[in-house]
Amino acid sequence: MRFIHTADWHLGKLFGQRHMTEDQAYVLDELIALCDDLRPDALVIAGDIYDRAIPPPEAVALFSETLAKLALRGVKVLFIAGNHDSAVRLGFGAELLRASGVYLAGMVRAAEPPVVLSDDYGDIYFSLIPYGDPPHVKDAFALETMPSFDAALGVQIAAARAQIPAGARSVAVAHAFVIGGQTSESEHALSVGGSDQVGAENFATYDYTALGHLHAPQRAGAEHIRYSGSLLKYSFDEVRQKKGAELVEIDGAGAASHTFYPLTPRHDVRIVSGLMNELMAEGFDPLPHDDYICVELLDSDAVLAAHEKLRHIYPNLFSITRPNVNMGRLSSNERIYERGKSELHLFAEFFADVTREKLSAEEEHALIRVIDGLEKEAREA
Amino acid sequence: MRFIHTADWHLGKLFGQRHMTEDQAYVLDELIALCDDLRPDALVIAGDIYDRAIPPPEAVALFSETLAKLALRGVKVLFIAGNHDSAVRLGFGAELLRASGVYLAGMVRAAEPPVVLSDDYGDIYFSLIPYGDPPHVKDAFALETMPSFDAALGVQIAAARAQIPAGARSVAVAHAFVIGGQTSESEHALSVGGSDQVGAENFATYDYTALGHLHAPQRAGAEHIRYSGSLLKYSFDEVRQKKGAELVEIDGAGAASHTFYPLTPRHDVRIVSGLMNELMAEGFDPLPHDDYICVELLDSDAVLAAHEKLRHIYPNLFSITRPNVNMGRLSSNERIYERGKSELHLFAEFFADVTREKLSAEEEHALIRVIDGLEKEAREA
Repeated sequence: MRFIHTADWHLGKLFGQRHMTEDQAYVLDELIALCDDLRPDALVIAGDIYDRAIPPPEAVALFSETLAKLALRGVKVLFIAGNHDSAVRLGFGAELLRASGVYLAGMVRAAEPPVVLSDDYGDIYFSLIPYGDPPHVKDAFALETMPSFDAALGVQIAAARAQIPAGARSVAVAHAFVIGGQTSESEHALSVGGSDQVGAENFATYDYTALGHLHAPQRAGAEHIRYSGSLLKYSFDEVRQKKGAELVEIDGAGAASHTFYPLTPRHDVRIVSGLMNELMAEGFDPLPHDDYICVELLDSDAVLAAHEKLRHIYPNLFSITRPNVNMGRLSSNERIYERGKSELHLFAEFFADVTREKLSAEEEHALIRVIDGLEKEAREA
Repeated sequence: MRFIHTADWHLGKLFGQRHMTEDQAYVLDELIALCDDLRPDALVIAGDIYDRAIPPPEAVALFSETLAKLALRGVKVLFIAGNHDSAVRLGFGAELLRASGVYLAGMVRAAEPPVVLSDDYGDIYFSLIPYGDPPHVKDAFALETMPSFDAALGVQIAAARAQIPAGARSVAVAHAFVIGGQTSESEHALSVGGSDQVGAENFATYDYTALGHLHAPQRAGAEHIRYSGSLLKYSFDEVRQKKGAELVEIDGAGAASHTFYPLTPRHDVRIVSGLMNELMAEGFDPLPHDDYICVELLDSDAVLAAHEKLRHIYPNLFSITRPNVNMGRLSSNERIYERGKSELHLFAEFFADVTREKLSAEEEHALIRVIDGLEKEAREA
């Protein structure tokens, strides 16, 4: 059994005030070409198909076309809702799509049946475990008290395992923040201050676990419990991450091996550092200038019309940082609104700018709670 | 060949500030029971599946479940986007759903293939003609000038017919305003002042045409060109309309007959007329008091706390009209905001109330253009 493990497509994502849909279509074509090369039995998408509950129509069309292309090639598709998806909207047509080899889990349900695929050695059971925040898991499983994130996942997994015959080969597909994982700015915390983390041991009984949520490809507690990482770089702290997909092979005994296949985006996301006169010099940056760029401008003095000059060099300039400048010293004209940063980061900077003080831990928590609440509302829209 | 023709479900509709989703689920269960009785080959929904481009999640879930129930019964489902639907969002999964016997047309496309069903006498070709406003038809067919609504439909039909063998039996499914049709307030004009109307002769070559858009069941220019009407009453000017679905039978020679099957809603929509003391009298209204009610209060004098008193009798009181009262004479407390009326109607009343003058034809046109523009924007969201 060979399948491709991918996650965190975030179709319809805005990055640097730009809809990424065309970049996503480009890299999905590459992923489909990879399927033509590798001829996997299935493609698994571990949540965050879309970037928000109500994605733009182009993103819906892109996902629909991508599924159709995979079905045409006989590649089965398995996917789950992540914290960015609307579980209900993503769940449209779940029963009907099975006839086309598309298996999905949107809403958390107490009895989500496993998807059974088979190879020469017999059946392999895939548990589709959609992102379940504690209130939804409490509802779906009629729990008496509110579980922690870890306990909620435990309940989902126990229910999933109960439907898999003992000794059968099995794969879990889940969207969660496993303790110790390397985070990126574009992920959005699931909750306040660490309570959103779950233990990798939850997945111990599976031969392979295909995880989504963290955007860097990485192992999570064990070699066969992995994040494939996101489809593209979606924030500037991801510039050093390799983006791609895992080809997973499971042998007759249930031993899983994996090989990472990088994907090449239409535009790379890069940070370019230098003084203004260096940046302006011919040949300073040999890489494509139409990449999505954050310039780290090293000058310590005010620079006239920095944004206009740099935009001339980099048509897709998303932001400028000034590590050697105390922002308070600059005129408001010189202060650049840094797009692509998280709400938390932006607010903290604004706060520091206005009050000359840092947010206290308590204030930061209050702020996270507000942002968290707003995002939750938006997700449930 | 027997199929059920229905239209204008408007799932997720707000009526009287109330989401109609539960009422819609109730009547759809009845429609499914009707399928169990009549055992049609297919169910045809002629547009306006949803009430708006971005329906509430419950409406998406209801449509998904309804499709699954029909598929389970082996009833094929054919549907198109109406002017209320987002053509792109409704189009999700079109290719994949065919394997489950679900055929749909969302966006206007130049080469929409017919759906071919068959019976003992051979094939029947269904042309799915989604609602196409002139700009979309111009784009899809690369026309040089902007067509009228009638010409746009003509282009869509010519393209559809070109894919049907001469002499074959055929059915058109379309969403349009056929000249001479009886309108209702809840339909929303497609455009300003009559330009949205199309000729029934466009459909002359089809053995049956299943129309959507007008909410009253009716023939449209010929016996075999028909509106099934909407699933439920969605405004108070529809109180006298029978709601239900048409069972259409097409014989081996292509002759179509039809039988209307009424559906009984969970709550009827009614206007109750009377003086306050009549309305308060035991036994005055023998029909269920939890229906969705507009009270036509006949008193010509001010009535103290009319809304509270009537709400006590009718828990689902949606509005009150006062035909014998000059609204200007009432205090603002007594003036009841009449929910369920169109924006145009409400604004015209407000205008008359404030200026003591009626909207001129020119002013009304300007207003329609504004409302039309806003709705178009919302639809394309």
